Amino acid sequence: MKIGIDLGGTTIHGGLVDHHGVIVKKLSFQTPQNYEVQAIVSIMDQMIDEFCEYSKEVSGIGIGIPGLVSKNMQEVLTCKNLNWTEVPLVKLMKKRPMPIYLDNDANVAALAEFKLGSLKNTKNSMMLTLGTGVGGGIVLNDHMYRGSHGLSFEVGHMVIGDNFYDCNCGRNGCFETFASATAMVKYAKKLLEEGHASSLSDLDHMDARAIIEASKLGDELSVKVFDRLIHYLSVGIINLINLFDPEIIAIGGGLSGAGEYLLKPIRDKVNSMIFMEGHPSAQIVLATMENDAGIIGAALVAQTLEIDSE
Amino acid sequence: MKIGIDLGGTTIHGGLVDHHGVIVKKLSFQTPQNYEVQAIVSIMDQMIDEFCEYSKEVSGIGIGIPGLVSKNMQEVLTCKNLNWTEVPLVKLMKKRPMPIYLDNDANVAALAEFKLGSLKNTKNSMMLTLGTGVGGGIVLNDHMYRGSHGLSFEVGHMVIGDNFYDCNCGRNGCFETFASATAMVKYAKKLLEEGHASSLSDLDHMDARAIIEASKLGDELSVKVFDRLIHYLSVGIINLINLFDPEIIAIGGGLSGAGEYLLKPIRDKVNSMIFMEGHPSAQIVLATMENDAGIIGAALVAQTLEIDSE
Repeated sequence: MKIGIDLGGTTIHGGLVDHHGVIVKKLSFQTPQNYEVQAIVSIMDQMIDEFCEYSKEVSGIGIGIPGLVSKNMQEVLTCKNLNWTEVPLVKLMKKRPMPIYLDNDANVAALAEFKLGSLKNTKNSMMLTLGTGVGGGIVLNDHMYRGSHGLSFEVGHMVIGDNFYDCNCGRNGCFETFASATAMVKYAKKLLEEGHASSLSDLDHMDARAIIEASKLGDELSVKVFDRLIHYLSVGIINLINLFDPEIIAIGGGLSGAGEYLLKPIRDKVNSMIFMEGHPSAQIVLATMENDAGIIGAALVAQTLEIDSE
Repeated sequence: MKIGIDLGGTTIHGGLVDHHGVIVKKLSFQTPQNYEVQAIVSIMDQMIDEFCEYSKEVSGIGIGIPGLVSKNMQEVLTCKNLNWTEVPLVKLMKKRPMPIYLDNDANVAALAEFKLGSLKNTKNSMMLTLGTGVGGGIVLNDHMYRGSHGLSFEVGHMVIGDNFYDCNCGRNGCFETFASATAMVKYAKKLLEEGHASSLSDLDHMDARAIIEASKLGDELSVKVFDRLIHYLSVGIINLINLFDPEIIAIGGGLSGAGEYLLKPIRDKVNSMIFMEGHPSAQIVLATMENDAGIIGAALVAQTLEIDSE
């Protein structure tokens, strides 16, 4: 039995997860909006106490973080959503007779897909999470790959072109400034400001979902925004194929809600632009794990690291 | 004892290599300039016969190809330099009581660095070969990584920006159109055509080395070309760090002849633009294997695959 915690900017979800990856008990708390470290630590400690009272068989804890963690998976290096830099999170938590591991939330989601979802039984594969940013996790030689200094897999900050606005990392052209929900809204607003006509005029309530729905109805501006998303998503995916040559690339996150409407044009574009046209290459599929992937994946972090260290 | 063959567009170099990676006998032939498959096969068969007569202890053959090879390392998928597409090279060669393996020449060079040079004793590392194009090879979890369909590691075709000319792969913005000797010459010619003054005026004899030498002497146009090389090399290297987070990135190929004049500004730029500024990340070093790396690396392909299959 493992505890998985999904620490997000809005909510902290936790679950007691059995060795089949099934959540047997679940708890959720609001994330304190000052992001105060000690307050968040207390909530997580309280959650864990409650799970440990419920079951005596808990043997490990995994926590998914929307940021980068240290190589030993004990410290948060940086977490922009929570305004955290170098927080020794595990050290600040209550001492317990079981290990606690931190991992990047996109790695956690990819691990859930790898063990139980769309990436099951692959040797080399990856997941892209398309939401407000672009995250990702990668499986190489049957294992989650985390790099030599804990800095992999920051796919959202792979530069793929010249863009009209800078990334919040300070550079220009990052994948997530072209291929995220945020990128779509920014480009739509830019086109509106330039005087393009559109059925979308409520700037305050414009979001990626509204743009996608309008593009399905033929709204010219929305089609332009969607086509740009497809173009740059394909450029990024071809880069990843040229570098990693995986068996499967799974697409998850908010934008993946568009389903085949998103995937079909990506597959077509990737196939037409790939280096070795016609040669077998990565399948592009939808991620299959649902909302609880963050909890289940975090529990799997604890489980797989226990197996690896045996 | 292994035979290593470096099949290039100009010359076919072969060597008999002992288990320390030392070449004990070497042969070279001109590559037939019609690139006729059977003629090249005959030369390689003749070379191998001569090595096998010289030593009775030959137990494997590796051949480095300037192109992509199939997953089973028996066929050439594509090789632009030789105008080859889908050539079952090993099948066409003389049957022998020992295995023959093909590999991409940049992988071969990286393997030589990994076993005997700048990447020795690393777990995750990579080599970039900066010449007329940009090639690369990558070591992950102590092994050369070749991907799931033999398509990795085509780093030269990672798109990193918008360029003024298209890549010969048909796309725009590939790394090698910014960070190769060819890219430098194309940009220098473009600037000259636009009327920029320069000490370089002999268009027919302009090459990357001349540009680098002129930039050292302060020639304004050459400095501009060199600065652009450094900028895009850094963008590409940061992408690779964000994705793979290796311990070491070794730079080889013709451009690496510029030594620290090239490396120092790259290190400075990478450090200033990296996602986690100040956090330990990849060291950028010069490759240390010399010209025979192609022969030695090819022999190591046969050696390491023999070990892996034991």
